[in-house]
Amino acid sequence: MKKVVAGVDIGGTNTVYGLVDEKGKVLSQGTFKTTDYPKVENFVIALTDAIRKLLAANKEYRLAGIGIGAPDANYHRGTIEHAPNLAWKGIVPLADLIKKKINVPVVVTNDANAAAMGEMIFGGAKKMKDFIVLTLGTGLGSGIVIDGKMVYGHTGFAGELGHMTVVPGGRECGCGRKGCFETYASATGLVRTVQNLLSEMRDETPLRDIPPSKLTSKKIAELAAKKDPVAVRAMNETAEILGFGIINSIVFSSPEAIFLFGGLAQAGEMLFKPVRAYLEKNNYVLMKNTVKILPSGISESNGAVLGSAALIWNDLKK
Amino acid sequence: MKKVVAGVDIGGTNTVYGLVDEKGKVLSQGTFKTTDYPKVENFVIALTDAIRKLLAANKEYRLAGIGIGAPDANYHRGTIEHAPNLAWKGIVPLADLIKKKINVPVVVTNDANAAAMGEMIFGGAKKMKDFIVLTLGTGLGSGIVIDGKMVYGHTGFAGELGHMTVVPGGRECGCGRKGCFETYASATGLVRTVQNLLSEMRDETPLRDIPPSKLTSKKIAELAAKKDPVAVRAMNETAEILGFGIINSIVFSSPEAIFLFGGLAQAGEMLFKPVRAYLEKNNYVLMKNTVKILPSGISESNGAVLGSAALIWNDLKK
Repeated sequence: MKKVVAGVDIGGTNTVYGLVDEKGKVLSQGTFKTTDYPKVENFVIALTDAIRKLLAANKEYRLAGIGIGAPDANYHRGTIEHAPNLAWKGIVPLADLIKKKINVPVVVTNDANAAAMGEMIFGGAKKMKDFIVLTLGTGLGSGIVIDGKMVYGHTGFAGELGHMTVVPGGRECGCGRKGCFETYASATGLVRTVQNLLSEMRDETPLRDIPPSKLTSKKIAELAAKKDPVAVRAMNETAEILGFGIINSIVFSSPEAIFLFGGLAQAGEMLFKPVRAYLEKNNYVLMKNTVKILPSGISESNGAVLGSAALIWNDLKK
Repeated sequence: MKKVVAGVDIGGTNTVYGLVDEKGKVLSQGTFKTTDYPKVENFVIALTDAIRKLLAANKEYRLAGIGIGAPDANYHRGTIEHAPNLAWKGIVPLADLIKKKINVPVVVTNDANAAAMGEMIFGGAKKMKDFIVLTLGTGLGSGIVIDGKMVYGHTGFAGELGHMTVVPGGRECGCGRKGCFETYASATGLVRTVQNLLSEMRDETPLRDIPPSKLTSKKIAELAAKKDPVAVRAMNETAEILGFGIINSIVFSSPEAIFLFGGLAQAGEMLFKPVRAYLEKNNYVLMKNTVKILPSGISESNGAVLGSAALIWNDLKK
């Protein structure tokens, strides 16, 4: 029997899961609402039942492990800890709970680490040993790979670049502090930047007719493509602060590439071009022209499942 | 015959070298002026002759390797590259030049990486796998260890935390940029902070009678210990910005400890206490109370030789 793993991405709203073979082919996948399970025990039953169903339809495969991406997940302990966006409070021993239902190796880490592992095993970083993935969505997540290994750190929570302070005394962050990288360089950060520019600029723009709570980074990127002056400036300011945070990351680990993934990265060259220009101008001399800024090599549609699957494939190969 | 290695620290002014056994005992050491050798070929002859003399006086030992700490050194390539503080211009293939004279393994890296390796092999980080050493001297050097391995990065120049931007548009740095960490959090940075405070404050202080070019971090620490108001405030401001840069490093790699080494670290609790207080208040929630701020476990007097020796001992044990 051929080996297969399950990749699981637990989000605040939805959980996506799928079976992935050694080459990164998603054999089948499914989804259910995370919010349907206020108790983690019931969630674990639903998830393991769902995985068993997929396996029953793929009888030539044997399950070798389960990889899980989840918010506030700790790789060392196999836990989800104090996740503000999930109903399960305190410290949830997720890996242990799952192993009691299906006795295979289970690894848990945050979704950005899973994305980075997906990039390394199945995506654009296949031949790289030093790179960073930034996921630019509601927040800014990061997965850091150094010398071919994911950085988990002493606590298991390493790679929280979204909480580097980039503007001392700046925007309020969900973490209770101010000026964190993710309050500027994320899909949400771009929307906040537009609000600020609407206060500073007098230009006419359709952006004044959209309630901030309905505004998306996609809409802003569309308007920037049509040369809307506020949208263009918002995109450029976001790119500059993204470049600033990237340089502060480069002096740390000197990666070969930075991959940008997630909603904001969909803006494409409108974002990438000014980021590269900022780096060219402002990077530390020893690092100049040493780092590629790249779009993710993993498709957004099955990236979460692939990344989580890559986590466990990587562990199984050790 | 027992094995011994040579540890060499090449500074802009002096070169220090010594023989170090596997337990970190410095058997004998010596020094000469780096500036006496404007040509690197002559430097290599002087250095290898000096090491041979030490070996001749320690006949029961066999040389197993040479570890070298030097400015702008590249571990991957064994080179010193465009070092502004050395007479040897361009790319100097130091490891290869030395191997031609003494055919043993030779490794080269920057002095802060050597300090970190010394900490791991012989100092306070013996049982740690994730830590950072900050050397607070004329500049701010850093050596980063993740999962038991020194971080060299794709280029071999990783760990340049002194060139994180901590104050956008701030103080001019020797690298040509502004607001770099080392322009504030170093012995030199403390002296610059005093000059700024002398412009802002009206307090009487002996600091007004010392030419800035003669002022040292040691003198400022002495005055701070006597509660000189300008010196105390300079020490606190330096500690805060040091704490700020430390937090931005912690969210990256989540280390178990940060070791402070070098001239400014000699200020002891006057520096460490406000740094710890800053972290307690401002650290990212997932990292709170997870990081120890520690003095180096290596003595300043033979730290450079020990660190460089540790580099090659570590490679020989692989």
